[in-house]
Amino acid sequence: MERNLYSLKEIDTNDLISILNRAIAFKNGEISHYPDRVVGNLFFEPSTRTQQSFIMAEKKMRIQNMDLYPEGSSLVKGESLYDTVRTFEAIGVDALVIRSKEERYYEALRGKVSIPVLNGGDGSGDHPTQSLLDLMTIKEEFGRFSGLKVLIAGDISHSRVAHSNIHIMERLGMKVYLSAPEMFREQDRVYHEMDEILPEMDIVMMLRVQHERHEVRFFLDPLGYNRSFGMNAERIAMMKPEAILMHPAPVNRGWEVTDDVVECGKSRILRQMGNGVFVRMAVLERALKRCEE
Amino acid sequence: MERNLYSLKEIDTNDLISILNRAIAFKNGEISHYPDRVVGNLFFEPSTRTQQSFIMAEKKMRIQNMDLYPEGSSLVKGESLYDTVRTFEAIGVDALVIRSKEERYYEALRGKVSIPVLNGGDGSGDHPTQSLLDLMTIKEEFGRFSGLKVLIAGDISHSRVAHSNIHIMERLGMKVYLSAPEMFREQDRVYHEMDEILPEMDIVMMLRVQHERHEVRFFLDPLGYNRSFGMNAERIAMMKPEAILMHPAPVNRGWEVTDDVVECGKSRILRQMGNGVFVRMAVLERALKRCEE
Amino acid sequence: MERNLYSLKEIDTNDLISILNRAIAFKNGEISHYPDRVVGNLFFEPSTRTQQSFIMAEKKMRIQNMDLYPEGSSLVKGESLYDTVRTFEAIGVDALVIRSKEERYYEALRGKVSIPVLNGGDGSGDHPTQSLLDLMTIKEEFGRFSGLKVLIAGDISHSRVAHSNIHIMERLGMKVYLSAPEMFREQDRVYHEMDEILPEMDIVMMLRVQHERHEVRFFLDPLGYNRSFGMNAERIAMMKPEAILMHPAPVNRGWEVTDDVVECGKSRILRQMGNGVFVRMAVLERALKRCEE
Repeated sequence: MERNLYSLKEIDTNDLISILNRAIAFKNGEISHYPDRVVGNLFFEPSTRTQQSFIMAEKKMRIQNMDLYPEGSSLVKGESLYDTVRTFEAIGVDALVIRSKEERYYEALRGKVSIPVLNGGDGSGDHPTQSLLDLMTIKEEFGRFSGLKVLIAGDISHSRVAHSNIHIMERLGMKVYLSAPEMFREQDRVYHEMDEILPEMDIVMMLRVQHERHEVRFFLDPLGYNRSFGMNAERIAMMKPEAILMHPAPVNRGWEVTDDVVECGKSRILRQMGNGVFVRMAVLERALKRCEE
Repeated sequence: MERNLYSLKEIDTNDLISILNRAIAFKNGEISHYPDRVVGNLFFEPSTRTQQSFIMAEKKMRIQNMDLYPEGSSLVKGESLYDTVRTFEAIGVDALVIRSKEERYYEALRGKVSIPVLNGGDGSGDHPTQSLLDLMTIKEEFGRFSGLKVLIAGDISHSRVAHSNIHIMERLGMKVYLSAPEMFREQDRVYHEMDEILPEMDIVMMLRVQHERHEVRFFLDPLGYNRSFGMNAERIAMMKPEAILMHPAPVNRGWEVTDDVVECGKSRILRQMGNGVFVRMAVLERALKRCEE
Repeated sequence: MERNLYSLKEIDTNDLISILNRAIAFKNGEISHYPDRVVGNLFFEPSTRTQQSFIMAEKKMRIQNMDLYPEGSSLVKGESLYDTVRTFEAIGVDALVIRSKEERYYEALRGKVSIPVLNGGDGSGDHPTQSLLDLMTIKEEFGRFSGLKVLIAGDISHSRVAHSNIHIMERLGMKVYLSAPEMFREQDRVYHEMDEILPEMDIVMMLRVQHERHEVRFFLDPLGYNRSFGMNAERIAMMKPEAILMHPAPVNRGWEVTDDVVECGKSRILRQMGNGVFVRMAVLERALKRCEE
């Protein structure tokens, strides 16, 4: 049974559904403790949510955690990711969570290490546990995926979330619509005007304007950006009564979502964060569980 | 019952005394374990003592701790303190300890978050657990507060400790005297010559010269500073036999206290540090305890 | 009984052998838990292996660990190591692991602190737990020390490992040979041509080229360095059938050891890392064990 989590593209649908079911079970109080196991969290890029959420998942499961911060590591001495991972394996770590700026960093590890690796985000590539928490939130809300219409809007080109989600949502039978300013678009995709399709959507997922990844700040004016491409009270009012607003967070308040809307009734942003802990418990269990268990 | 600890100014005297009594009980071996609770320690400013002392308190109480270091967090991406705190709340943290450079940072959280926040120091403002450990050390030594005379000497203007202590000590019936070089004084306070009042004092609290907060190093010469405003063997000899020397630490040895006096018989500096763990256990218990407990 | 571990030079042979025996016992499954003890790890210099290996040892022994990172500490404020250590002692830490750039930093602590200090490496001086894991790996392989011939090759002048090992290996009856490029040699030692003595050696310990410690990069070309002073397939072929290759890691692949040889049959490099956890368990037990235990 696969225990790694590199990309949701590599996970078959049964496996995926069983991860989501375990996450929901954990939310409902299921307990699963691994006090004799040690998980290493290697975050080579800052991330409050993903890192703290994995740590919280580990604490809830009584897993012992080791945290590596790049500035305190031998990577300073020019050591490769492969050698760092082999070190953790040699000293007895049972699984690793890795986040890196480098896209598909996990290819350097595939088939070469005996301990499972959980991808906590790879550059502008993938972010499987974020997608899982999005899917869990949708499943909780609608009880199904098939036929749901989702709009993903904003900085598509730099978003791991968008990349992870588009593929998996279509696989699950959802209809994915994209909306983005010209410079945030990727070729070979169809884009829509947000206001035209908004009233039909079941889910609207806004993406962060990733200021830190742009060499030039394209949009100097949050209000202007928001009016053209963001979420605000007027657009909330255009949505179907049962439709929901999602965002991977952290939110740039005023840019992609106005302040008054972040915690509004349609918003599932805080619930997404909470669900993040439970999906991470599920993938940690999947990584650590032995055959007989 | 109040579970936050923003400033001692907001704590009523009964509550304060009961915190001190619990701290003394912990020092005497009382045990109180919370293995199912998670506390987050958010230190946006360096502090060995406060941070490690909170962590030690958590470990003694079997609380699970999560530590956030600003350089590894989404705050790098410009996230607000409010959003960071809401994140921790959403992922299931039970209480937060926060230290920040920003004075009264907690106003942005008041009434808006459901988990208790313990102030580990806010800029030049308040430092309630430091005041509590000072009070515990005084209570241990003298068995009372009323009528005790305390001199607070040194860098008053930049000291959280001074600010926290002056108000609370007067409330408890102590007589507070201040002594400071001209440029470390605050308006609207009375200042004394140290040597004139030293022989009457029960407690002398020396403050750190906070070099890192001064744009210009006013005093280039530790000896000169110490002779005019610091503690040394001659001044120790002027103190009453039962009087004690305190300091919030870290000490700038040679400046506000000479090397030979830091660990002398009258010094309670190391005992203060030890007591810091017990007052932090008391405020953590106060934050985590449920009504039925 | 001595509980500090400053330098192996200060450890008598019986004590040393008993540490190695405990380490081997731990590897064979011996359990020794200290859930009520707290150990502080103070790493003032980056080190993946040593730090994570100590943390893993602590986790296997259910010791509670506190980690101090210099950038988050009062050392920023100019506090001395002595005062930092006294702080940890005052707040109730039971033992400290310290790594520092400063050679013989522990002299400032000797006889002045009541809690044991384990040296995790001091500048270019000593690195006792690394030597212990080397010795454990040798003992595991050959069952004895006396009469074994070991070659230590490479950057002798900057290597803590070389300094720690030469003395202790000779004390245990091993014959130590050195090989190094001109500029990595220390005076008053005899050096050999690697290829002349390689066929007689039981153990070859390659050292890291410590690029980060050299102001000028003497060797711009890894291939040239490796051909003259490094380990590669041809030299592996020159070694005795039962001889082994060791390296303290991290390896500069291509420099002192070629890529194809790092994980070859003769290599014990990964096993050394694994053994590092067990020797650290042994010295932690030695530090924490009370007389009656």
